[in-house]
Amino acid sequence: MHVVVNAAMSADGKLSSRRREQVTISGDEDFERVDRLRAESDAVVVGIGTVLADDPRLTVKDSGRREQRLENGQTANPARVVVDSKARTPPDARVVDDEAETYLCVSENAPVERRMDLSNQATLVTAGDDRVDLLRAFATLQQHGLEQIMVEGGGELIFSLLDDGLVDELTVFVGPQLIGGRDAPTLTDGDGFVENYPELSLEGLEELDDGVVLSWAVQY
Amino acid sequence: MHVVVNAAMSADGKLSSRRREQVTISGDEDFERVDRLRAESDAVVVGIGTVLADDPRLTVKDSGRREQRLENGQTANPARVVVDSKARTPPDARVVDDEAETYLCVSENAPVERRMDLSNQATLVTAGDDRVDLLRAFATLQQHGLEQIMVEGGGELIFSLLDDGLVDELTVFVGPQLIGGRDAPTLTDGDGFVENYPELSLEGLEELDDGVVLSWAVQY
Ligand SMILES: NC(=O)c1ccc[n+]([C@@H]2O[C@H](COP(=O)([O-])OP(=O)(O)OC[C@H]3O[C@@H](n4cnc5c(N)ncnc54)[C@H](OP(=O)(O)O)[C@@H]3O)[C@@H](O)[C@H]2O)c1
Ligand SMILES: NC(=O)c1ccc[n+]([C@@H]2O[C@H](COP(=O)([O-])OP(=O)(O)OC[C@H]3O[C@@H](n4cnc5c(N)ncnc54)[C@H](OP(=O)(O)O)[C@@H]3O)[C@@H](O)[C@H]2O)c1
Repeated sequence: MHVVVNAAMSADGKLSSRRREQVTISGDEDFERVDRLRAESDAVVVGIGTVLADDPRLTVKDSGRREQRLENGQTANPARVVVDSKARTPPDARVVDDEAETYLCVSENAPVERRMDLSNQATLVTAGDDRVDLLRAFATLQQHGLEQIMVEGGGELIFSLLDDGLVDELTVFVGPQLIGGRDAPTLTDGDGFVENYPELSLEGLEELDDGVVLSWAVQY
Repeated sequence: MHVVVNAAMSADGKLSSRRREQVTISGDEDFERVDRLRAESDAVVVGIGTVLADDPRLTVKDSGRREQRLENGQTANPARVVVDSKARTPPDARVVDDEAETYLCVSENAPVERRMDLSNQATLVTAGDDRVDLLRAFATLQQHGLEQIMVEGGGELIFSLLDDGLVDELTVFVGPQLIGGRDAPTLTDGDGFVENYPELSLEGLEELDDGVVLSWAVQY
């Protein structure tokens, strides 16, 4: 399994403002880059915070890329994965529409009724007591044949994946704006590290739109 | 007056961990770059949060650069400025030692006793009722002949300076590590912007140590 985290942050590391609404950080060139990355992936993963805030589709936008996938014997879109301990994904969320397969990673404590409601629209992966156990959940995804994994956020999920040693690469668009705010979501939230900071090595540096794409390999 | 903010952040925008202790984010090449920037400045500014957390000296480290300043008819070190509403700077803080001149920007509400204690070591600039009024404080600094201003953080002060439209340039070393943490200090904290995000234009992009220096001009 190979896990790439991709996100767009402002020049001060924010994924959104303190209002947690979707903020346009990048531009057309970066959207193309992200679409290409999605098309190359077996699954696109987000946390439930991102589903509730942004209601993303997570599908490949470019029809040529979808056709190419079909020609390669793949599904038109990569699978979508939501990390969602309590099965809070709304049944009318775009991420569980019929454009692509969806996996919901839930915990043992997710209410049975909500799991039932969602089980027609998504494959449920149960791992962890109160919170999704990411190591176990990702092992199950791998058993389903998902090898190339793209994680699109948010910062809470990204922290936990790093903490579990699950991230291989990190690609970050750094945008030409400042969002600020001690309560705004950042690229890596969670409890944070206090020593043994995950180390990165710079693999790529590219000007794009009016910002910069930094590509890092994670070295645990 | 020309105000440059310079800081080192981790790849996820943090100035330190949630413990708010000093974290080594950059390396020797960046220390040289920062020392050069200091030597080119009339004043180096920090918030009281940074003084209490890091006890910085804010002096020019390289003796050649200090001599060059003296040859130019300047003081060996640039002036130091602490933004400190309640005059909490400890009298034994390095920032008020006798290596350089120091200005303490305080508010009307700073306890008289503490002001008295510090008045031998620093020039007091009083502006604002409860919190330092940065526009007025910076106008006073300018009257003292301080034109080239370098701000070294932290994120609370940087936010307020941006909010007041006082920042011309932003130079950020982006380091090869992730710190994480929803409570860790970031490059721009404060309340944050929710619309009218300060826009930046990319002026420079340079690999340095194992990270990247991004230079931005601020466009209000
Ligand atoms: N700019 C970008 O590229 C970008 C990308 C994505 C998101 N965003 C922004 O980021 C914000 C949302 O991010 P977020 O950090 O709040 O949410 P998130 O990372 O998308 O989701 C976090 C949630 O996932 C669930 N979860 C389950 N197991 C977990 C585990 N082991 N570790 C961590 N989380 C686990 C938790 O909720 P439960 O306990 O209820 O399951 C947790 O609150 C929004 O403002 C969105 O707009 C921006
Ligand atoms: N990596 C780096 O380059 C770097 C650089 C600097 C700092 N740091 C780190 O950043 C952390 C400290 O940053 P910080 O953000 O907590 O503190 P800060 O920005 O250094 O200082 C903030 C304090 O300044 C005072 N202040 C007075 N008037 C203000 C105004 N108008 N606007 C904003 N603040 C005003 C406030 O305290 P009062 O109301 O009491 O006056 C406020 O709490 C430490 O962990 C330090 O290690 C890192």
